[in-house]
Amino acid sequence: MEFIELPREPNSPNLSKIAANDGHGENSSYFDGWKAYDSDPFHPTNNPNGVIQMGLAENQLCLDLIQEWIKKNPKASICTEVGVSEFKVISNFGDCHGLPEFRRAFAMFMGKVRGGRINFDPERMVISSGATGAAEIMAFCLADPGEAFLAPTPYYPAFDQDLRWRTGTQLLPIHCKSSNHFKITQTALESAYEKAQQANIRVKGVIVANPSNPLGTTFDRETLRTLVSFINAKRIHLICDEIFAGTVFKNPQFVGVSEILEEDPNCDRSLIHITYSLSKDLGLAGLRVGVVYSYNDTVVRCARRMSSFGLVSSQTQYLLASMLSDDEFTTKLIADTKRRLSKRHEFFTGRLAEVGIQCLESNAGLFCWMDLRRLLKEFTVEGELELWRVMVNDVKLNVSPGSWFHCSEPGWFRACFANMDDETMEVALGRIESFVRRTKEIGCSAS
Amino acid sequence: MEFIELPREPNSPNLSKIAANDGHGENSSYFDGWKAYDSDPFHPTNNPNGVIQMGLAENQLCLDLIQEWIKKNPKASICTEVGVSEFKVISNFGDCHGLPEFRRAFAMFMGKVRGGRINFDPERMVISSGATGAAEIMAFCLADPGEAFLAPTPYYPAFDQDLRWRTGTQLLPIHCKSSNHFKITQTALESAYEKAQQANIRVKGVIVANPSNPLGTTFDRETLRTLVSFINAKRIHLICDEIFAGTVFKNPQFVGVSEILEEDPNCDRSLIHITYSLSKDLGLAGLRVGVVYSYNDTVVRCARRMSSFGLVSSQTQYLLASMLSDDEFTTKLIADTKRRLSKRHEFFTGRLAEVGIQCLESNAGLFCWMDLRRLLKEFTVEGELELWRVMVNDVKLNVSPGSWFHCSEPGWFRACFANMDDETMEVALGRIESFVRRTKEIGCSAS
Repeated sequence: MEFIELPREPNSPNLSKIAANDGHGENSSYFDGWKAYDSDPFHPTNNPNGVIQMGLAENQLCLDLIQEWIKKNPKASICTEVGVSEFKVISNFGDCHGLPEFRRAFAMFMGKVRGGRINFDPERMVISSGATGAAEIMAFCLADPGEAFLAPTPYYPAFDQDLRWRTGTQLLPIHCKSSNHFKITQTALESAYEKAQQANIRVKGVIVANPSNPLGTTFDRETLRTLVSFINAKRIHLICDEIFAGTVFKNPQFVGVSEILEEDPNCDRSLIHITYSLSKDLGLAGLRVGVVYSYNDTVVRCARRMSSFGLVSSQTQYLLASMLSDDEFTTKLIADTKRRLSKRHEFFTGRLAEVGIQCLESNAGLFCWMDLRRLLKEFTVEGELELWRVMVNDVKLNVSPGSWFHCSEPGWFRACFANMDDETMEVALGRIESFVRRTKEIGCSAS
Repeated sequence: MEFIELPREPNSPNLSKIAANDGHGENSSYFDGWKAYDSDPFHPTNNPNGVIQMGLAENQLCLDLIQEWIKKNPKASICTEVGVSEFKVISNFGDCHGLPEFRRAFAMFMGKVRGGRINFDPERMVISSGATGAAEIMAFCLADPGEAFLAPTPYYPAFDQDLRWRTGTQLLPIHCKSSNHFKITQTALESAYEKAQQANIRVKGVIVANPSNPLGTTFDRETLRTLVSFINAKRIHLICDEIFAGTVFKNPQFVGVSEILEEDPNCDRSLIHITYSLSKDLGLAGLRVGVVYSYNDTVVRCARRMSSFGLVSSQTQYLLASMLSDDEFTTKLIADTKRRLSKRHEFFTGRLAEVGIQCLESNAGLFCWMDLRRLLKEFTVEGELELWRVMVNDVKLNVSPGSWFHCSEPGWFRACFANMDDETMEVALGRIESFVRRTKEIGCSAS
């Protein structure tokens, strides 16, 4: 079994290999963008020429609705006059199963986000510390060090840390291409699997994000069926990261892997696992609420034991149990989130189109996958990173180059659009517009 | 390197070895007691003959004071009318450094619990999901699979899961004995270390709980100095789990490892690490608030990256930042906790003494280390477990036998006394008293 040992950091002679290697990914270029923003953050009045953060898939568009609900429901909190009587019981509750009413409400919400077409069983819900914790639990449960998961490119860069770092497992790319809108094909799956076999690496599963981060697209039924039949044929696992399920803002509507299972009586359910969280759909990243939902009983049992390493605060569970049980509220919240995301997406991509920037057609997510290929000086990763440096240092926009997402074609960039208010969005668009104009002028004078 | 592979569970052919092995410890007898309680829990009116839980080191004695503070400080919560304006910012805050004001307040509190003789640097505070998360982070940072930590017996049974399960590291006993009140000696340390070397196991550190769980005793300066000089001589790490630091209810007062460092200019600080949490001292186990405090810069950096797998809810951080910054409140809380624990301890051990049950003399913790050796039918682990079954099934008290804590002498039991009200304590004592009387009668009639 091939297993690449990462180099040790200096000055750590008697620490572990994990502490000494680079697998945490924080030294990767993905975090360079965050550092660029952190050192010069935009503020409308205090720092109007600062960097605008378009590298953070954060959802700020509906927090006002949640805030309003909290104000109206003081009983949901153990910190209010009317709710504090529950303080003692809740503050002491450290059971790794989680509050039963929280798991119930969370399962109900998951179903609702998926159009009410699927019932999730609260007994299969394993609470985790955000999707980060959920992803790592999956890797720990399913693979041994050196074994691998296949992931379609482009994929979320932090998967490299979440799935690989402490578990010692590997991630191998399934190369997807712009020529078919980055869809996963049977050929690409087979090719990635064969390549692993040739390298003598045991493949234990496929991990996909549906909706995709960074593409903002959802999987169609056909692709999901291809995936499910592929992993069944190979007897390997499928992990579906559905963290953006609630951000699908226009047609085609979201189809989760659970629906495919229901249709296919021959599918071995014990191979299928979902990770989810409230960080994106509800914008509650700080509350660290994630879940592993597995159709495999042993995995449920094992993941639950692992959840003691990253449980959700019972204070937060208690609040959310109440909030997610409010049917009327969650119906409105889900609808409003879609509406606001749709509006923002349309506005952003429309203005980009006006200056000739196209995005991959998408229906979900908190970002667009911008095609800046024609702005590259050379059609290489270096050419892409050169353009990124111009974007961040001159244009003062921290977007994320495709190479950070392991995209095999240079020139694509992810731009997040839901982590700012309308005014900041306007400033960002103004900067892009004037940059494109400048580029054209330079292009003209040079010709 | 010797590394014992644990047996796989059935029906998990394609899962990981971790998922398939028994290292989570949930099948160990330690959890049998919890199951016994769960199936027949005592309730004063609904189930007055049920099992009383004395196997849970939970602190319920001061939650009323915290509850009162919360009522008086609605601004500390993002869920109250006056605090909700902070909701958006806090609910979105997922930075693995934690809220700066929380780290500051937490560091201040840690110092205060230790009598104000030590200043903790907020920059060395790494937030974790309870002490469980902190312990695992330590093992991941310091040791590779197969390498070992030494732990003085008796020790906290969940260390076996927390430190070993997902990391693949080992725990090896330092045998301590009742003849010197279970103190760690230089001889015992050297002997454990040598035994590991003979077995070709690399020792990476020593882990101790100070105050000790299950003993309820604190380390004296001399023992701490012995430990610190031992690990310096061997160039291995020292992890001090100080989770019960705030429960020291009578003299001698608590001495943390930090004080020993300050006194010893030759000690290599980079070998010393502390884990701590608010689950015991404040009784807030449900909020999952732990910390790794390391004097090693690389470990701080690495642990912080790992904390993303088990961060504390920002809602909870925000509340505690405010609470722990309230100097007047924490002073009173720390004093009242000690006072109430002292009273409960005195009452409990006093009544036990009246029926001839002695406990190891202790000054800390939420439990006593009861000497029931003279009640054993045979002086073996099996004899101890037989007595335990009588205690749980007939006497209806779930205490914990010493063998669960890897104690090398049969007949010691841990009894928790801070997880119940006065009335339940009275019932528990009544049951013990009548059990001892019955045993004596049987003893008499048999003689």
